[in-house]
Amino acid sequence: MSYRILERSSLPDYLDSLPRVKEILGDGGDLDIEEIGDGNLNYVYKIRRSDAPDRAVIVKQAVPYLRMVGESWPLSRDRMTFEIRGLELYNELVPELVPSIYHADEEMSVLVMELLDEHVILRQGMIDGITYPRIGTDIGIFLAETLFRTSALGMDSIERRELMDRFTLNHELCKLTEEFIFTFPLMEHESNYSNPATDAFARTVLRTDTDYKLRVLQLKNLFLTKADALLHADLHTGSLMVNEADTRIIDMEFAYFGPFGFDVGKIIANFLMSYTSHFFHSRDDSYQAWILDEAMKIWRVFEQRFLDLWSQQGDSAMLIDGLLDESELEEFKRRFMLDIFHDTIGFCGCSLARRTVGIAGVADIRDIEDPDTRAELEIINLKLSHLLISRADTIDSIEELESLIRTFYAEQSPRSRN
Amino acid sequence: MSYRILERSSLPDYLDSLPRVKEILGDGGDLDIEEIGDGNLNYVYKIRRSDAPDRAVIVKQAVPYLRMVGESWPLSRDRMTFEIRGLELYNELVPELVPSIYHADEEMSVLVMELLDEHVILRQGMIDGITYPRIGTDIGIFLAETLFRTSALGMDSIERRELMDRFTLNHELCKLTEEFIFTFPLMEHESNYSNPATDAFARTVLRTDTDYKLRVLQLKNLFLTKADALLHADLHTGSLMVNEADTRIIDMEFAYFGPFGFDVGKIIANFLMSYTSHFFHSRDDSYQAWILDEAMKIWRVFEQRFLDLWSQQGDSAMLIDGLLDESELEEFKRRFMLDIFHDTIGFCGCSLARRTVGIAGVADIRDIEDPDTRAELEIINLKLSHLLISRADTIDSIEELESLIRTFYAEQSPRSRN
Repeated sequence: MSYRILERSSLPDYLDSLPRVKEILGDGGDLDIEEIGDGNLNYVYKIRRSDAPDRAVIVKQAVPYLRMVGESWPLSRDRMTFEIRGLELYNELVPELVPSIYHADEEMSVLVMELLDEHVILRQGMIDGITYPRIGTDIGIFLAETLFRTSALGMDSIERRELMDRFTLNHELCKLTEEFIFTFPLMEHESNYSNPATDAFARTVLRTDTDYKLRVLQLKNLFLTKADALLHADLHTGSLMVNEADTRIIDMEFAYFGPFGFDVGKIIANFLMSYTSHFFHSRDDSYQAWILDEAMKIWRVFEQRFLDLWSQQGDSAMLIDGLLDESELEEFKRRFMLDIFHDTIGFCGCSLARRTVGIAGVADIRDIEDPDTRAELEIINLKLSHLLISRADTIDSIEELESLIRTFYAEQSPRSRN
Repeated sequence: MSYRILERSSLPDYLDSLPRVKEILGDGGDLDIEEIGDGNLNYVYKIRRSDAPDRAVIVKQAVPYLRMVGESWPLSRDRMTFEIRGLELYNELVPELVPSIYHADEEMSVLVMELLDEHVILRQGMIDGITYPRIGTDIGIFLAETLFRTSALGMDSIERRELMDRFTLNHELCKLTEEFIFTFPLMEHESNYSNPATDAFARTVLRTDTDYKLRVLQLKNLFLTKADALLHADLHTGSLMVNEADTRIIDMEFAYFGPFGFDVGKIIANFLMSYTSHFFHSRDDSYQAWILDEAMKIWRVFEQRFLDLWSQQGDSAMLIDGLLDESELEEFKRRFMLDIFHDTIGFCGCSLARRTVGIAGVADIRDIEDPDTRAELEIINLKLSHLLISRADTIDSIEELESLIRTFYAEQSPRSRN
């Protein structure tokens, strides 16, 4: 269907024309249409049958401009094309961990999907100190299934490049990542966040440390050039909808082939920033202990599931039967996972810095009113970023990483807690 | 124009319909049409005006099967699409080092281009012991200009991914590289070349050395996943047409985004295999001395020109003004070039092995009749492959590499020379 912007008035007829959506909403009755205000980029509608409120869908449509600003800020609708392609693929790979799709139309830049009404955004849940027993495990499984199965270890060479071809042109959003994660936070830039003590630390410690800067640029180079697997590429605690029993990953408009460690490191960084924020949000360290356990579980489960998938895999672009004997394969796996681990620690360090001094902060900390309290926590994140990036290539096991982080946090004593 | 196979009978009318080709061939007179027999994949015609033989062109057309076998071996015509795109780009970047294009048609899978009639294939020239004063320099310049200017250092982020998008689907030829360079030579495989003493060496030394195999697989992983720049991707001494005054690079149907070091290492490996072959072809080591000088010059000129281009470059996907100060930039460049150098040595080692035990040999050695003489030279290549791959990451300068190779060759004393 050729593109037109859906409105409150045209939505009912449009939805009525989509067989699978009609099945979900059922016949008869009016529709309650609620525009959800938090879509900065896109229009997002929550739609329910008035007489049967459990019959409901989400409609998400991209407009050719930035929704929160208006037509004066043009932005290609292509982002929805890649979100559709990403979500379709995830529905094949990990259907239980993403919303179901009822209708997708690249021309119309529209997705109609499952309403997750009994879920909250993980970031908000973690700000509120809620524990989610499955979270580390579910994220680890999601990462392993999506990354392994779109990699040269899990795909044939031809099919893999055909899949890559479907995402190569997601370049506008890639450029945002390159600039806002890997460039502007390293320098004085008008887009950066500002808080005096935090700025001073960034200026005197991070931005004068050549080795730190060059390591970040090496990671930027990996993001620019290394196509290990299809990344979600924006996997933070705001891209997860959760409850005690269920975990769903959303918002894959950044989907792109990039380095394995990017997704893994970014989500772990968001757990660590939540940890830091709970020096303020919590009275004691019990919630922080839970966070760190789950953050480490993300890696542990990811690694285990990745290796399990590898054991079950037949010939791939990378390996074929008869190439390596068992002990060679074991050594290859060891080196391969270690490379991913080092990249993960590096990208984790990048996320910690960019979410602290860059334009996009985390609500866990940015929403704290008092700037001095914020600065205390922000500097903790920057110190941790510095530590992880400087040490990334020498940390060889998750136990070592865990112990390094524990020791680091034990040395912090922000007044926010005292 | 929709696809049809050009024949001797239809070629004159077809060429007559192409304005730029008509300009080259001029009006009147019959055309002499000669099919050049060495096109294994494609049909290649040399076409001249009978009454004005300096008015001439080359016509190259892909057919949807392997030309040397026939319709029973289907092969997609897409390879010509990528050759056209590669050659068009090279005509922008290094017009003096590639044939001029008179007409290109992706639909017709056809290229009409400059006839290089006063040139010989470099491989043949080197077998014949001819020196080419410009060769190392020209290759170095070609590599730097094409690799830098298609990299994240030499392009804007959006334009670069748009360029990548034009080559992502060259997957059939990528798969050939992955298998025939990085996989089959590491194992017993029916496609491999066989010569008893060479086989024995490969079996007992290369294929039992876990570290060697895993390093080759690490390089395979780079080829599969690292999109540093647009590679020629088949740059050997058979892909160069030369004379004393002029160097042209041809046959870019493998063009694909891959690691910098792949092109650089592959062409250097072909120089080294020529060096090895001259234990047989030459009476003394004077030609070998020339080869090694030129091989090292390839790297030296490449590095220098790459850094020159970098100095002239404004903002790019990788770097923007204000990000690094001068000393940081120097250190970044040092690390960046060192990474390329290590990859170059590694890929050079891979080429030495695959051209020795893999299906595609080099005529420099494979055309020697006596199998024992061949085996002597082949084992030298395999030893050098082993040395370079094992040491790739610890060789930190071209002087060190040169000295290592000199020492290595000084220790070889094949009976072929004695």
